[in-house]
Amino acid sequence: MIKKIALLGLLLAFLGCGERPADSGGHASATPEQTFKWKLVTTWPKNYPGLGEAPENFAKMVGEMSNGRLQVKVFGAGQMVPALEVFDAVSQGTAEMGHGAAYYWTGKIKAASFFTSVPFGLNAQEMNGWLHYGEGMALWREVYAPFNLVPFAAGNTGVQMAGWFNREINSLQDLQGLIMRIPGLGGEVFNRAGGEAVNIPGGELYTSMQTGVIDATEWVGPFNDLAFGLHQVAKYYYYPGWHEPGPTLELIVNKAAYDSLPKDLQQIVASAARAVNQDMLDEYTARNNTALEQLVNEHGVQVRRLPDDVLQELARISEQVKEEIAAEDPLFKKIYESQQAFQEQAAEYHNISEEAYFEARRLTD
Amino acid sequence: MIKKIALLGLLLAFLGCGERPADSGGHASATPEQTFKWKLVTTWPKNYPGLGEAPENFAKMVGEMSNGRLQVKVFGAGQMVPALEVFDAVSQGTAEMGHGAAYYWTGKIKAASFFTSVPFGLNAQEMNGWLHYGEGMALWREVYAPFNLVPFAAGNTGVQMAGWFNREINSLQDLQGLIMRIPGLGGEVFNRAGGEAVNIPGGELYTSMQTGVIDATEWVGPFNDLAFGLHQVAKYYYYPGWHEPGPTLELIVNKAAYDSLPKDLQQIVASAARAVNQDMLDEYTARNNTALEQLVNEHGVQVRRLPDDVLQELARISEQVKEEIAAEDPLFKKIYESQQAFQEQAAEYHNISEEAYFEARRLTD
Repeated sequence: MIKKIALLGLLLAFLGCGERPADSGGHASATPEQTFKWKLVTTWPKNYPGLGEAPENFAKMVGEMSNGRLQVKVFGAGQMVPALEVFDAVSQGTAEMGHGAAYYWTGKIKAASFFTSVPFGLNAQEMNGWLHYGEGMALWREVYAPFNLVPFAAGNTGVQMAGWFNREINSLQDLQGLIMRIPGLGGEVFNRAGGEAVNIPGGELYTSMQTGVIDATEWVGPFNDLAFGLHQVAKYYYYPGWHEPGPTLELIVNKAAYDSLPKDLQQIVASAARAVNQDMLDEYTARNNTALEQLVNEHGVQVRRLPDDVLQELARISEQVKEEIAAEDPLFKKIYESQQAFQEQAAEYHNISEEAYFEARRLTD
Repeated sequence: MIKKIALLGLLLAFLGCGERPADSGGHASATPEQTFKWKLVTTWPKNYPGLGEAPENFAKMVGEMSNGRLQVKVFGAGQMVPALEVFDAVSQGTAEMGHGAAYYWTGKIKAASFFTSVPFGLNAQEMNGWLHYGEGMALWREVYAPFNLVPFAAGNTGVQMAGWFNREINSLQDLQGLIMRIPGLGGEVFNRAGGEAVNIPGGELYTSMQTGVIDATEWVGPFNDLAFGLHQVAKYYYYPGWHEPGPTLELIVNKAAYDSLPKDLQQIVASAARAVNQDMLDEYTARNNTALEQLVNEHGVQVRRLPDDVLQELARISEQVKEEIAAEDPLFKKIYESQQAFQEQAAEYHNISEEAYFEARRLTD
């Protein structure tokens, strides 16, 4: 879950709170020569590995492509606004841009989860297919329009891990009463499966596990988890990340600010977001492997797969939860149906392409 | 195999051979105001679905981002130079840019296959990880430098299909004497497995299958294969595409031309390539599913998985072929070792992330 990183950002808010934001370039009618100085607020601690690098890479790319005509200054969580106020800050134009994850805003828009990741939903490649060649981006723009925001996909972590557990999970029985830090729709599902879902900021995970306040926690994957030292407080590392199979990060732009840009700078923003969207996944793909090897070989972490019956029950409940929310929330229903229809097709082909290839390669090792 | 599409381009060369290329803007020292008019030659027929759309999207994106300062005119195969002369044309500066696939140039550089796809190699996500966060891009630039070319990844089809067969493949015996259109390293492997690999241009596949000149052929995947009507001449559609698990397409830029660009336009070229690199995979991910459903539901195509023992033998021979070439070709060896080291790690994590998630989702359907 990325959600906790935003909360971690809150904890780390002191890091740069004395820093002054750059002046805005204003939103007067644009000429090709005009220079824009924009603020990009994020839900991540400044330069947080992977997630926090994406907005930095984006800003650098935009600055170079525009030859300095669009200068984007990146603020870590709490430096200008707290992590979970990024949406409002960009909506109101306090900052022109934000980087985070759509499912942080489910308090305002229940359906926003679909633009990040939902339990047993799309993986990274499928998310990108749905967003850019399915109905995804059009729906996302429609949902964010009333908030004066233009959204772009801008990063993906790939399938996450199911999490760290202080005991083995051999059956559904082992979930009963288990206190796990797992927020969002995944947490709702976990509760119904007999566990007790809690939400704890990232910075408290280590201590909470160590002192036994929680029995289990999910985070991201090897690359981020190793840095947090979670292997020191939990022995078992479970997969697969059923609750977050392909989390998309978002770049949001204040609509009035976006409209004030000349066409070339608008396209530079859009293309840079697209480039960063892939770049983050490339980094996780390269770094997760190395981190996993370290966890296993140097730290003796036990990697385990969740048993079939546990996965089956979690999948059953996930569908139930989605159906129940859909019955009450027409917007949620509309987006759920679009994504579900795409998923049924994508899964059909991926069973015989990506999955079948992984299987063939493994059995011939 | 994409290779045949380049050859198809040769067949379709008459399509636009009367068209005059745009004038080049020249390579004098650049000022921010200078306008560049560039030619982009491709190995694809003009606007060929998926593969041929990528250079068009790239040119459009670059034109918009540069506000017309870098104007790229796209030529289909044969319109300016034949498909398989793209490398030389860009190397010599006849055109400033080219779009195609690195493994078309294995006649010059045996190791070029690694920058597209090799049998039992990396899938799309892994290729992007190796290229951008492994040693891939650095090696690619090193290999192309003597040819005066700057390479970029610029598209991916995802795992391809194993191909169309006019008989069932139940064991290795069924490959003996089978005449299959399968070029490149995959063809070499197929020969050693007892088959007879031939190379036939894409435009001749339908007739060759219909008249029994060949017993089987591979092409790309459902999205491209449906359009070619191959389901009308072969009943069995096999997976997975062991011979091309994640083909990367390339954008090549003449080095002198690239160096003549101001920094902002260089970055625009690089970012647009990156955006297109993901965009093509997004399109295949969305369209393959729909095409597969049509093939199965409307055309009665029988989808089959290659048997374990066939895959195992093909994998064994693939390694043998790569080792043999590596023993004779130091550059091939160097790149093979880099990619293989990355693959061993990537595969380890993907077994418990992407593959395990696909499996969990399927078993809980």
